[in-house]
Amino acid sequence: MAIIVQKYGGTSVGSIERIKFVAEKIAKRYREGNHIAVVVSAMAGETDRLIRLAQGLSESPHPREMDVLVSTGEQVTIALLAMALWDLKIPVRSLLAFQINFRTDDTHTKARILDIDADSIRRIFDAGEVAVVAGFQGITPVRDITTLGRGGSDTSAVALAAVLGAELCEIYTDVDGVYTCDPSICDLARRMDRISYDEMLELASLGAKVLQTRSVEFAKKYNVPILVKSTFSDAGGTLCTKEDTDMEKEVVSGITYDRNEAKISIIGVHDKPGIAARIFSSLSEKNINVDMIIQNMSVDGKLADLSFTVSKNDYERAMKIVRELVDELGAQDIIGNTGIAKISIVGVGMRSHAGVASKMFAALAKVGINIMMISTSEIKVSCVIDEKFIELGVRQLHETFELDKRGNSLEKS
Amino acid sequence: MAIIVQKYGGTSVGSIERIKFVAEKIAKRYREGNHIAVVVSAMAGETDRLIRLAQGLSESPHPREMDVLVSTGEQVTIALLAMALWDLKIPVRSLLAFQINFRTDDTHTKARILDIDADSIRRIFDAGEVAVVAGFQGITPVRDITTLGRGGSDTSAVALAAVLGAELCEIYTDVDGVYTCDPSICDLARRMDRISYDEMLELASLGAKVLQTRSVEFAKKYNVPILVKSTFSDAGGTLCTKEDTDMEKEVVSGITYDRNEAKISIIGVHDKPGIAARIFSSLSEKNINVDMIIQNMSVDGKLADLSFTVSKNDYERAMKIVRELVDELGAQDIIGNTGIAKISIVGVGMRSHAGVASKMFAALAKVGINIMMISTSEIKVSCVIDEKFIELGVRQLHETFELDKRGNSLEKS
Repeated sequence: MAIIVQKYGGTSVGSIERIKFVAEKIAKRYREGNHIAVVVSAMAGETDRLIRLAQGLSESPHPREMDVLVSTGEQVTIALLAMALWDLKIPVRSLLAFQINFRTDDTHTKARILDIDADSIRRIFDAGEVAVVAGFQGITPVRDITTLGRGGSDTSAVALAAVLGAELCEIYTDVDGVYTCDPSICDLARRMDRISYDEMLELASLGAKVLQTRSVEFAKKYNVPILVKSTFSDAGGTLCTKEDTDMEKEVVSGITYDRNEAKISIIGVHDKPGIAARIFSSLSEKNINVDMIIQNMSVDGKLADLSFTVSKNDYERAMKIVRELVDELGAQDIIGNTGIAKISIVGVGMRSHAGVASKMFAALAKVGINIMMISTSEIKVSCVIDEKFIELGVRQLHETFELDKRGNSLEKS
Repeated sequence: MAIIVQKYGGTSVGSIERIKFVAEKIAKRYREGNHIAVVVSAMAGETDRLIRLAQGLSESPHPREMDVLVSTGEQVTIALLAMALWDLKIPVRSLLAFQINFRTDDTHTKARILDIDADSIRRIFDAGEVAVVAGFQGITPVRDITTLGRGGSDTSAVALAAVLGAELCEIYTDVDGVYTCDPSICDLARRMDRISYDEMLELASLGAKVLQTRSVEFAKKYNVPILVKSTFSDAGGTLCTKEDTDMEKEVVSGITYDRNEAKISIIGVHDKPGIAARIFSSLSEKNINVDMIIQNMSVDGKLADLSFTVSKNDYERAMKIVRELVDELGAQDIIGNTGIAKISIVGVGMRSHAGVASKMFAALAKVGINIMMISTSEIKVSCVIDEKFIELGVRQLHETFELDKRGNSLEKS
């Protein structure tokens, strides 16, 4: 019998009716003769409700107790889903982190997974039962409750699939797969049948929001195939697997963008060692993450312009820190810009294809879009552009790289 | 340092403001230099909300999963209360049943306590921390979550006090103690400073509703002194302890009543062996609890009248069962009456005083109250009367036994 791990997100179990619907889906899969472990999130809105309770009580709720509080959301869902399955005559057992030794370190509210007692789940399979596991939560070696951070249920599911050696980890959500670009701004967006872990990682971290980045890293590390599907439709789905020879190496698989960036430029700083370190250590001390960094050497080699991007939420704080450093740096000016966005193309085929970046720059130039910053990785090219050109840029690149026309190897076969 | 167990009910922790208030009370007691374990219920209304969720999903929710579901109520409270204590700089640790091995049998939704790992709490005391324990829940030897039945948090608190050898178990609630009778129907009701376990048991099971009966049985068995107090007032309180020589043995300590009874009479049944067994086994098979039973022999010894009382909720079902037995029993008639109530006097002094029952009957007769049924125990006399005379009867008995005038030994000393 095949071992399947399924994960249902908060929207999929957001009401009694939806929980019954999900139970029917699980029952069908069980009756087909599979060992099934289901990981669920809290009902939509429940985690926020619990967080609001804590915030109403305390300005900085104690992290250990925060985890005790918010982990109840998933506990409610596993109980209700198990009840619904019993009503369908499916033998089932709900499981909390402590019952399967889902062990993590003690970094409360964003704990790292250490290991899981796979045997405890296997015994449930041997008894012919479905295992319904609370996502998002873990237990420390001293038996304190932890949580894995927002969206952690994806990671719970992939980790469980890894230790069980599951054939497949099915992630059910409210979209029916991963698209070549955001369908809401590009009519020609096409669902991909297949995508590699590396591409998915770039897409996820760039804002595609379908899968939690950490869950994809986990899947890649343990080679767990992930199928992203819609809970409420049988059609479609995108399979996220390791890159293999069967997979056509798309030069560009997808296009993504992120509006949540702001740019800060420091003009005319003395180009001497330690300047960059001074700036970025001041920012990191305040927990401000910097995304792209670009430094332009001056012609005479004495003055340089330094630009970087931060999350829009951190922009004001970052500007304040940089302004305080102006004198020390001897900078001539500081320019901030919150009207920017990042547009990126992703594809494993870039590794073996030259000229992809220049084709991107030319395409953007053709419709009059100015590029403010560029950064590249092995399988990605990102450009910072004026925010108002995002939709235009996405459609232009989608057309340029003909993402609407081409399928990947699974579609063609 | 003294070990104190405190228990706060759902109303006492029913809002963020009340949780903060309760935290202040605990902090004060902690700073006085005590080891404190606090047991809490779910926030008022939360358990009902969870039960409604389950009932919306299933006609008969699976008991194991029901316990997983409803136990989240207490988990939310311990987390919030611990956060509130941290904000007052009190070192604290919330604890679920599995973290202190609060072991029960596997009778889901009404589990019996097996044992508790007192050392796990003592280690918390040794670290100078307050232990905030989720009431109502337990864990089976195979680590399934159980609950102790409605109102089980009182029992959790007393059990914890027993294993810790606590000096006192303080039960905080929305009334300031145990009264000689219901203050809402008798102006002269007086709060008792002290009451014995046996008296409290009779009062609790007769409907006084201040303490869960089971918690008093537990307290009696392990000799745990219980102080019932109001959360929101420093005044008063009733101490429930073992009967000792210091305690004046009140002939009548309190008067209680129960409107939730209905009477069923089977007229003219053949008085032969097995009749009563036939009736009451049919009722118990359907989980109908019978309270009082009275059988009147007929003069010629061939026919008898049999009367008994059941909870009003069970009345219709009980009547149906009895009607089905009419032919088999050869009974002449069946008469039901839902307009009755039970009035009782309770007092340990009855053991050594004759004439208490007849004094009660005379007092009721004096104001024209007819007695339909009588039952007695060592320290209690109960009469079934017409429901509309309950207030009159309570006031009359309160006056007859002069409960407003007399104090018990603690008050007099």
